[in-house]
Amino acid sequence: MTVRHRARYVVTPSGVVEGGVVAVDGGRFSAVSAGGAAELDHGEAVIVPGLVNAHSHAFQRAIRGRTEHLAAGREADDFWSWRDAMYRAANGLDPDGIEAVSAMAFLEMALGGITTVGEFHYLHHGSDGTPYADVNELAHRVIRAARRVGIRIVLLRVAYQRAGFGKAVDPMQRRFVDRDVGAVWRAVEGLEKAWAGDGMVGVGVAPHSVRAVSRGWLEDIGAARGGRPVHVHACEQRAELAACESEYGMGPVELLASAGVLDERVTVVHGTHLDARALAVLGERRPVVCGCPLTEANLGDGILPAVELLERGVPLALGTDGQSRIDMWAEMSRVEEQLRLVGERRNVLARFAPMVEGRRSTAAVVWPMGSAGGAQSLGVDAGAIEAGRAADFVVLDLADPALAGASRMSVLADVALGMTPRAVRSVYVGGEAVVEDGRHRAAGAIGAAFGAVMRSM
Amino acid sequence: MTVRHRARYVVTPSGVVEGGVVAVDGGRFSAVSAGGAAELDHGEAVIVPGLVNAHSHAFQRAIRGRTEHLAAGREADDFWSWRDAMYRAANGLDPDGIEAVSAMAFLEMALGGITTVGEFHYLHHGSDGTPYADVNELAHRVIRAARRVGIRIVLLRVAYQRAGFGKAVDPMQRRFVDRDVGAVWRAVEGLEKAWAGDGMVGVGVAPHSVRAVSRGWLEDIGAARGGRPVHVHACEQRAELAACESEYGMGPVELLASAGVLDERVTVVHGTHLDARALAVLGERRPVVCGCPLTEANLGDGILPAVELLERGVPLALGTDGQSRIDMWAEMSRVEEQLRLVGERRNVLARFAPMVEGRRSTAAVVWPMGSAGGAQSLGVDAGAIEAGRAADFVVLDLADPALAGASRMSVLADVALGMTPRAVRSVYVGGEAVVEDGRHRAAGAIGAAFGAVMRSM
Repeated sequence: MTVRHRARYVVTPSGVVEGGVVAVDGGRFSAVSAGGAAELDHGEAVIVPGLVNAHSHAFQRAIRGRTEHLAAGREADDFWSWRDAMYRAANGLDPDGIEAVSAMAFLEMALGGITTVGEFHYLHHGSDGTPYADVNELAHRVIRAARRVGIRIVLLRVAYQRAGFGKAVDPMQRRFVDRDVGAVWRAVEGLEKAWAGDGMVGVGVAPHSVRAVSRGWLEDIGAARGGRPVHVHACEQRAELAACESEYGMGPVELLASAGVLDERVTVVHGTHLDARALAVLGERRPVVCGCPLTEANLGDGILPAVELLERGVPLALGTDGQSRIDMWAEMSRVEEQLRLVGERRNVLARFAPMVEGRRSTAAVVWPMGSAGGAQSLGVDAGAIEAGRAADFVVLDLADPALAGASRMSVLADVALGMTPRAVRSVYVGGEAVVEDGRHRAAGAIGAAFGAVMRSM
Repeated sequence: MTVRHRARYVVTPSGVVEGGVVAVDGGRFSAVSAGGAAELDHGEAVIVPGLVNAHSHAFQRAIRGRTEHLAAGREADDFWSWRDAMYRAANGLDPDGIEAVSAMAFLEMALGGITTVGEFHYLHHGSDGTPYADVNELAHRVIRAARRVGIRIVLLRVAYQRAGFGKAVDPMQRRFVDRDVGAVWRAVEGLEKAWAGDGMVGVGVAPHSVRAVSRGWLEDIGAARGGRPVHVHACEQRAELAACESEYGMGPVELLASAGVLDERVTVVHGTHLDARALAVLGERRPVVCGCPLTEANLGDGILPAVELLERGVPLALGTDGQSRIDMWAEMSRVEEQLRLVGERRNVLARFAPMVEGRRSTAAVVWPMGSAGGAQSLGVDAGAIEAGRAADFVVLDLADPALAGASRMSVLADVALGMTPRAVRSVYVGGEAVVEDGRHRAAGAIGAAFGAVMRSM
């Protein structure tokens, strides 16, 4: 049965359609047209593609607000002291706790217009390193949390081997570590088998970083990955670059390339510190680079060099990563905002936009980072409103003060640069309403379970 | 009649009170206690002081989303091209239009928890420079807009004399310019007389900038200001510093000091470019410095040097300025975020916080910038929940996913660093509810009038 949705504006890959009608059939868009009848008229609203959150660690929602201080005796703080706090949380959650915290993170994503999450999942075993009876226990819990909320998930099963080059095993990392790379593949294949019948669930593989995985594991993953999406953290912190240089005589990006893990099916997460050599290799291999600007600012990582990447044709995606906030609208606008701030200029990214009606729009450049770029990164057939794609879309309220007064020419800027999650009215995944009138029907239960976990921490 | 409000957490100057009860009597707080009976139990909520937006140009809401592109033929963009677009909007609005746009800006402020606005008002005359029959026509319109919404307003009546040192009159500025400084004072006194009976309205005076006002006008304003708050733009853009140096042989801050316009009753707006001399003078004179981080990022101004200012004991306030967004929660968190981003560190401002229960909280430093600092800047007796102050407060929903799980120790960080306006449940000004359950009763009418203006632009 076809259901047609109508709204004042519809954001499509070829532009904003005024009075557009979007037809949905069997969970996919079957047509997009300018005008015509509709079963559901959303009125003064904007229909946009569901956002794709390409990089999430759902359990880190548990430490929101809990690392924003200096402990007695400390005069300064950085990424590495944050990581200590994060490790304590990672080891303090049992399977029920991980499911409850993940569900809260995914609920906030849904309410904020995110319809697909790429979950970079590295909590595998008990806190002492003992595998669960089902080695995928925790991955299943995270996937179930996403299924309860109703968003798509690509579980990026992490391979974690070691503390780092020449470093002793860190007992806080026992939960992450597999004995050998074969264990990684058994887990990946187990997940694929368990969720094969569910179109809302995908599986990928994620060597954690060049710090946590040796060249041998990287080469194995590069050779055996098949068609799966591969995600890897790289070039987030300067200390990581120096360590890679001293182990291999090259930077993380070159190492990934030489190990066979750098092409269009690979996503490099962060990339805040890229030198000329790394940029050249990225420009040749064209992996997706996934920035996480809110997290990278929170953690003092640095600024995504989006201009240099776009100049080299590298596609960009975005993720909410550490969940200090969950707001993909803000992630999109931050890419441009950070460049304005340090460059003391405006509309820095606009030159990468096509000329449309006499202008190059900054929003046209950042918008795909939050939608189609993420879909490419995760290998899902979503991220744009066009016939044949999954019918994942968001209805935004034009009466919200954040968007009021938007015109056909301004609405993409209002949405990509000035949105606030309050303006999200409804969210559809595969054509089904997950959020209606700003409410999610499981919010009460998810909130109660999450509250209980947080009180126990 | 006393009305007592209870919530899970109450944010007071001396800390977060769990199960706190706030008593309101005659529009002011009469007591704050830990526990006890309450007429209104807000349950799982946080009561925080109403936010004070110390720097607003309400009419600029009309250009949101409309300057976020490069026009054909342009390869780069900056503050000055943005200003051209802003001038066109400033000249295109009639009195009804200015009132309608201002009302929408103030509505968004109220819904976002702002209970006082400092309106830096420089639209005075007809677009051709002819004064209205009442010279304060437009100021009255802006004040009425705030009164309709129900928030407090301090109308900072701007003095605008000239285009700049040695510059010809700019016809786009005719609407702003007064013939002589006596006209400024007549307008200020007219406003004071007209609104004398209304405790929700204050009046101040605002020499626009050292560019737009000569030393003679500054000296006159410094001498005649009385107890009024004085606001002045300074050190936003590098070009302004160079012009001041060439006219006076000193920077804007030194000029203000030497002209008698720099002490505790003065607010310097922006201060993104402060050299060692300017910082030394600010440290001696201790005016308020008002940052506008969202606008300063949008316009490519630069980063507020908050560390250097706090080291010198300079109080800080914040404003939404150009209204590209209206979100004082975001303004607060951005002060810290921008410093982390360029410093590649975390909890940069925490060292200025008192040690409480073994920690120094970053939120404890940014929180006063959005509340008590703004109240000091505008000379209003609000900005904190303590007996005797105006009962301006906001009730935040702890069930909102942005705040869920907040503990007594984390809640200030969750609120000051991680909030989203969606979590604003109710807003009280002088003890009266202006927003209830996230809704404002005039929203429909204000939205309709604003929509009509925007369609006509």
